[in-house]
Amino acid sequence: MGIVIQSIPRADAAIIDGLARAGVATVHEAQGRKGCLASYMRPIFAGVQVAGSAVTISAPPGDNWMLHVAIEQLQPGDILVLAPTSPCDNGYFGDLLATSALARGCRGLIIDAGVRDVRDLTAMGFPVWSKAISAQGTVKETLGSVNVPIVCAGQAIGAGDVIVADDDGVVVVKQAEAAAVLAAATARLAAEEAKRQTLASGTLGLDLYNMRAALAAKGLRYV
Amino acid sequence: MGIVIQSIPRADAAIIDGLARAGVATVHEAQGRKGCLASYMRPIFAGVQVAGSAVTISAPPGDNWMLHVAIEQLQPGDILVLAPTSPCDNGYFGDLLATSALARGCRGLIIDAGVRDVRDLTAMGFPVWSKAISAQGTVKETLGSVNVPIVCAGQAIGAGDVIVADDDGVVVVKQAEAAAVLAAATARLAAEEAKRQTLASGTLGLDLYNMRAALAAKGLRYV
Amino acid sequence: MGIVIQSIPRADAAIIDGLARAGVATVHEAQGRKGCLASYMRPIFAGVQVAGSAVTISAPPGDNWMLHVAIEQLQPGDILVLAPTSPCDNGYFGDLLATSALARGCRGLIIDAGVRDVRDLTAMGFPVWSKAISAQGTVKETLGSVNVPIVCAGQAIGAGDVIVADDDGVVVVKQAEAAAVLAAATARLAAEEAKRQTLASGTLGLDLYNMRAALAAKGLRYV
Amino acid sequence: MGIVIQSIPRADAAIIDGLARAGVATVHEAQGRKGCLASYMRPIFAGVQVAGSAVTISAPPGDNWMLHVAIEQLQPGDILVLAPTSPCDNGYFGDLLATSALARGCRGLIIDAGVRDVRDLTAMGFPVWSKAISAQGTVKETLGSVNVPIVCAGQAIGAGDVIVADDDGVVVVKQAEAAAVLAAATARLAAEEAKRQTLASGTLGLDLYNMRAALAAKGLRYV
Amino acid sequence: MGIVIQSIPRADAAIIDGLARAGVATVHEAQGRKGCLASYMRPIFAGVQVAGSAVTISAPPGDNWMLHVAIEQLQPGDILVLAPTSPCDNGYFGDLLATSALARGCRGLIIDAGVRDVRDLTAMGFPVWSKAISAQGTVKETLGSVNVPIVCAGQAIGAGDVIVADDDGVVVVKQAEAAAVLAAATARLAAEEAKRQTLASGTLGLDLYNMRAALAAKGLRYV
Amino acid sequence: MGIVIQSIPRADAAIIDGLARAGVATVHEAQGRKGCLASYMRPIFAGVQVAGSAVTISAPPGDNWMLHVAIEQLQPGDILVLAPTSPCDNGYFGDLLATSALARGCRGLIIDAGVRDVRDLTAMGFPVWSKAISAQGTVKETLGSVNVPIVCAGQAIGAGDVIVADDDGVVVVKQAEAAAVLAAATARLAAEEAKRQTLASGTLGLDLYNMRAALAAKGLRYV
Repeated sequence: MGIVIQSIPRADAAIIDGLARAGVATVHEAQGRKGCLASYMRPIFAGVQVAGSAVTISAPPGDNWMLHVAIEQLQPGDILVLAPTSPCDNGYFGDLLATSALARGCRGLIIDAGVRDVRDLTAMGFPVWSKAISAQGTVKETLGSVNVPIVCAGQAIGAGDVIVADDDGVVVVKQAEAAAVLAAATARLAAEEAKRQTLASGTLGLDLYNMRAALAAKGLRYV
Repeated sequence: MGIVIQSIPRADAAIIDGLARAGVATVHEAQGRKGCLASYMRPIFAGVQVAGSAVTISAPPGDNWMLHVAIEQLQPGDILVLAPTSPCDNGYFGDLLATSALARGCRGLIIDAGVRDVRDLTAMGFPVWSKAISAQGTVKETLGSVNVPIVCAGQAIGAGDVIVADDDGVVVVKQAEAAAVLAAATARLAAEEAKRQTLASGTLGLDLYNMRAALAAKGLRYV
Repeated sequence: MGIVIQSIPRADAAIIDGLARAGVATVHEAQGRKGCLASYMRPIFAGVQVAGSAVTISAPPGDNWMLHVAIEQLQPGDILVLAPTSPCDNGYFGDLLATSALARGCRGLIIDAGVRDVRDLTAMGFPVWSKAISAQGTVKETLGSVNVPIVCAGQAIGAGDVIVADDDGVVVVKQAEAAAVLAAATARLAAEEAKRQTLASGTLGLDLYNMRAALAAKGLRYV
Repeated sequence: MGIVIQSIPRADAAIIDGLARAGVATVHEAQGRKGCLASYMRPIFAGVQVAGSAVTISAPPGDNWMLHVAIEQLQPGDILVLAPTSPCDNGYFGDLLATSALARGCRGLIIDAGVRDVRDLTAMGFPVWSKAISAQGTVKETLGSVNVPIVCAGQAIGAGDVIVADDDGVVVVKQAEAAAVLAAATARLAAEEAKRQTLASGTLGLDLYNMRAALAAKGLRYV
Repeated sequence: MGIVIQSIPRADAAIIDGLARAGVATVHEAQGRKGCLASYMRPIFAGVQVAGSAVTISAPPGDNWMLHVAIEQLQPGDILVLAPTSPCDNGYFGDLLATSALARGCRGLIIDAGVRDVRDLTAMGFPVWSKAISAQGTVKETLGSVNVPIVCAGQAIGAGDVIVADDDGVVVVKQAEAAAVLAAATARLAAEEAKRQTLASGTLGLDLYNMRAALAAKGLRYV
Repeated sequence: MGIVIQSIPRADAAIIDGLARAGVATVHEAQGRKGCLASYMRPIFAGVQVAGSAVTISAPPGDNWMLHVAIEQLQPGDILVLAPTSPCDNGYFGDLLATSALARGCRGLIIDAGVRDVRDLTAMGFPVWSKAISAQGTVKETLGSVNVPIVCAGQAIGAGDVIVADDDGVVVVKQAEAAAVLAAATARLAAEEAKRQTLASGTLGLDLYNMRAALAAKGLRYV
């Protein structure tokens, strides 16, 4: 531990923004139902749909020193992603760090721990997805690392991977797969729109998706 | 497993609507403090107070096939109630299924698992009470059953039982008891209104409910 | 058990109101990073920042009798703080009790258990921080105590201690330390404002706080 | 609430004992993968494999009065099954109640709450499957019911249903289905013995169960 | 923080040893059903029944430095009691610290966090009651305090309070109340022995405790 | 999904066996305090200390088909490591699969889900570290993958990484780092033995590790 990787790959901005528009559920399906962070990762306020390149942070429990180090590594469009090395719900991040991150063009924070000053963060429009909201502060005593591979809320995340987050939670897209996933997501969105209109008109999914024969073959009985 | 019961009893619409107006806490008290689903069942958006007849679904973990089957069984005023056969937080239900359910007159979903597309569902005004919000998708491989008795979030629920849900959570009323519970709830609401005014005027509950003697008899000491 | 202490010390109103303005995170830091209740204590609605003197309640699981007893002990500016004697998520408190508490000048409720009638409480503007929202009712059979020392959500709280609560959660300040904590909090707020402007201008925390040398001394490597 | 049903149906002793010999996992499979109580229900000591007729108890949180009432309803071969009306981890049951239950021929306790005196219970050989071990005592103030339908650890259980419990946990078999389930379980055990020998000899499950074609048809790729 | 209180009151050894013999459940009842630590505090091996004077430790999450400081404060017959300042499951303590503590006459460890080297600790016969077993190590960077009042697993514990622990968990007895609690516990044990024999002979608790009238008065119905 | 990687790297047998002898806590420290799986991963029986090469499995919730596929990939000395694609506590694995795995020389199972037949597994001496014990069975309907990178209980694990497991839990060592970690672990064990003797003689850790000056410099006060 104690390493800062300064140069990381990032996906194209257009791809990242496309993934943001597709949203978490669609992106997750488009890449084969993978990449969702644990469902306890919740936004501190609703209504944001965002994507960015991950600047990853591995930090000790109760120690937020590495956030200061990570902020220097931010480029506009990045998202901070912090995983503690063991479970912790302390408030690692508040309005001062958010002010600094915003000054670097940061789009948000994903943290498998706690956040505080949520009223200020909401007023600033700085989105956070976290495991907890907690005022409990942290120290600055022990090193961690920046831009190393981490596991955050059950998903392996590398620096530069694309993070997509909205009211449904958070999904990670491998940087190398981002273009392909966007293509699949775009196709999926188009198909969904047609389905939506058909279903709204009263056609059942059983018929739209031709499920009746398969259900009968499995043995479904109507009584 | 693998059964769909197509004909279920339902309570009268007027009774169901009356229970909706009474709300969860009052209905629960009116039927003898029973029927509340576990407190982790939370609405995806606030401000809805609704009741309907349960169309029940028993589904495998990570498999939402039966939701399509259940939607065909919906009548206007029904509420879908899904229990997985083992704990699961996957997002079984999203905006496409909601579109289809709405086209059948469905009033909402109670799910002891996850839901997704919550921004869309909120925009559509389709209420959901769930254990989790999760974009993690499901498969359509294994049968479950529709309109069989289930246990959802700690309560036994039969098809046609009345579901009442609001910001306090969810309560189930046995279909056969619905009329009696509504009568008791209505009486209770009237009594509460009088109490509210008395308490607002500064009268203590200790006096309004004549508690002082009972407390003293139990040995309460003021020091 | 079964004791009501009728006379308790309270901090000066000006100190209490000053602590409310400082907010939970700042107060917690100002008193040496102590006093935060567990992060599962969440407000039932957002946007309130409040402080008051604790009227403490130790109550059996599933029994809210002592809330009626405690309300008589309230003075304007007090906050009810309830800890069950073992884990419980029942809805101990609803709109009738809130009506009565408001009539006594109560500023809110902190409860390591459940609350109900949250839509009414929100409409009344009566703030609650709780472990759960639950319509499940309680009985009035067993004594507890009022204004005895309790442990609520992981913190020892005495009657008359100052409770500060906002969107970040809840912190307790010992009554005897309240003046000193307010002084430290006020100093801290002033310092933070200056830091905020510096950080907003793009200066890094690494430089503002002179962290680079300490990080290098610990062995942080940039690669 | 407040009802004691004194006459309940029970399965034949031979069927109950046969189900005990089959064990939880086999019985659960034999009845179509249903009936398992939540996995947090753990034995206080290992090595017991038992079955009996359920004498059910619905009890308030923190109140064990109904256990005394239920013990009078025990017949030799019965198992006590207690569900609190809301989540509770109190120690409802200890060595005195076990002494009394043993004197009535009780075979064990299933409790979705806590138990205490576990060293004594172990020495007595009285098996318990519980959610918690806790010395926290209870009161005797509020009625519950005996031999009414309950939901215990996620399963609906009626008085007289057969409870099977071993180191894997607890499963419930409907009294009316017990004979059929035993027949299916017995057939299953015989088939498993043959499979065990085949697998021990090195034959793969892929071949024993003819899975290769189905896997290939689903698209499994070996690389 | 950062204080070590070197002189603490301790209860008489004879009282402490008497409380050990009474055990957790009896002691807890004898002092009015209070003092039990949370039920998640479990022994790493079964069969120990012990009591000692608390040497308390308040430690940061993931930092076990203060354990070394606390060991110097141990006197023969003491028990270490550690509470992290926020939730943490790290393994703060292993066989080296246990070796050192044993050399000072320490009787065990109560820790609202994790412990490791449990096989060695078991072989050494050093008992631990903990929230978790975890090999995850800690740092030695940040001060905490020794022999200050703490909240451990939901109970306020002062230095010198008597800790009693057995297979049922852990209970704390205030040092000033220890003699009275022992007297009450001793009386209780004698009474329980008589009850045990009566119940073993088949007399029901309903009759032994004269419950039938009270149950009927509450409205219990036999059907 | 739906891939089986048939050729994976493995560490030398001598290194693997050396890591087994070092044990989880030492290995974790020797590699810089990393690699521990979540503390909820517990052995089904105590006293085993083992290491092996990971054969990884990514499986859908409630579907154990891929275990059959994975067993074919086992070589003597391997350990099965299963992560479900979303949280699940089903019993994926029992005595028949263990019989088959043992026939291939498998040393154990690490599963972030449930296991069953624990009495049989104990009798067979087949060790399992799991999140849950559950009889709830699974289906064989949906593909997963074998020997792909997974995240299991919070750690990223690749096929061929070395798994070390004992009563403290489970740690993963990257295959490429195994030799270096063993060297560091061996050195650490030797150093610990000397420390153990010094501490047993009564020397304090404060003196053995020269902590007094650092504590004083941080401001620790003795009162």
